Amino acid sequence: MTDDITRLEARLQHLEDLAEITRLLASYGPLVDSGDADAVAALWTEDGTYDVEGWHMGDRSEIHAMVNSKAHQRFIASGSLHFMGPPAVRIDGDTAVAVCESLMVLHQDGAFTVARGGAQRIRLVRTADGWRTKDRYARTLDGSAEARAVLGSISSRP
Amino acid sequence: MTDDITRLEARLQHLEDLAEITRLLASYGPLVDSGDADAVAALWTEDGTYDVEGWHMGDRSEIHAMVNSKAHQRFIASGSLHFMGPPAVRIDGDTAVAVCESLMVLHQDGAFTVARGGAQRIRLVRTADGWRTKDRYARTLDGSAEARAVLGSISSRP
Amino acid sequence: MTDDITRLEARLQHLEDLAEITRLLASYGPLVDSGDADAVAALWTEDGTYDVEGWHMGDRSEIHAMVNSKAHQRFIASGSLHFMGPPAVRIDGDTAVAVCESLMVLHQDGAFTVARGGAQRIRLVRTADGWRTKDRYARTLDGSAEARAVLGSISSRP
Repeated sequence: MTDDITRLEARLQHLEDLAEITRLLASYGPLVDSGDADAVAALWTEDGTYDVEGWHMGDRSEIHAMVNSKAHQRFIASGSLHFMGPPAVRIDGDTAVAVCESLMVLHQDGAFTVARGGAQRIRLVRTADGWRTKDRYARTLDGSAEARAVLGSISSRP
Repeated sequence: MTDDITRLEARLQHLEDLAEITRLLASYGPLVDSGDADAVAALWTEDGTYDVEGWHMGDRSEIHAMVNSKAHQRFIASGSLHFMGPPAVRIDGDTAVAVCESLMVLHQDGAFTVARGGAQRIRLVRTADGWRTKDRYARTLDGSAEARAVLGSISSRP
Repeated sequence: MTDDITRLEARLQHLEDLAEITRLLASYGPLVDSGDADAVAALWTEDGTYDVEGWHMGDRSEIHAMVNSKAHQRFIASGSLHFMGPPAVRIDGDTAVAVCESLMVLHQDGAFTVARGGAQRIRLVRTADGWRTKDRYARTLDGSAEARAVLGSISSRP
């Protein structure tokens, strides 16, 4: 009977991990478009990285600085959506990988336009404070082999 | 052992609540774009509210009327998508709050355009018939502080 | 006590089914836009079908051929996103139905445009290898009654 309980707990834990990761991923867009630099940075580990189109952020403080950057502040002052698609998530113990597509939609001159379509690969780790992003890698889906390889990483293990 | 079972059941219940809320949120777009006024209205409580850009609907019957309104019927007669992003959901007992971004995409003159990008905050309650929307608040992401505050409510408790 | 365990296991199984189906649905976009014909085809059963705007694919090999077709290869060589919205999923034993909206976003001449907004109904079955798509039916949301009926199928049982 104790074995049964232990087995059920492990299955529950897996689903709870998935729910927590799903929530973390769904939080990025709203937080970054609201301009909450602290909350965005807290989605990553202290040494977490974010590489988007050659803009490489090497730790939490650099992600914090990105949200407060002139470029990003211009986006949100005019209206922006960092719109993520539903992620495909794979968990392997204390690490996980998620892959999804994304749209950056900007409000400019009274109209909304799709400024970019992207491929996202997010590697996560379980920490004492819960799941956090360890590294995130994004490329524009402009036909490059590299962006397609990001999407293809959905098939590999974390 | 009975304690173990009770604890497992509580964890399961939380995940089931999350699944039900996720499904309810994912149903809005398809239902409203199919024009099913009854089914859309049934996503809310009897006294549920929906405030979108100053159009305040104060109960289920007003939400029903919105779906059947000339404005909405024109959208769906030409083709529309009320496209929701993955929601970040927080449950606290019998209440919950979800935050997400949304796109309204319209088909007009043979082309699709992003007519609006929005911020959504949806408060839900557990009823005898399951989870329902208690109030929903949507603002266009046009750079206004108010729309950004809607996104920021992701950080607060339900 | 054994009854309790059995009941908990059934509830867990339902949530695990939902998680697996959600992952399968979230994988389609990344896989098809990366051009991985094998992985896309493997989302379907051997005899699984895919009907999109009158292009009827009658089994796995025809879905494989679609990914490798000149039309699709042109899309991904230039950059494309088959962007799915969060699905509303209903499971009934060994079958399930999911409904969602979708956007096809294309990168052409240096800009991204929403080339199509769609209604998706995906019927799934449990196989020895896990959940697979049995038939998928997609229609452009251009105001047609048929496309709206696809969205409306969210209300029916699988």
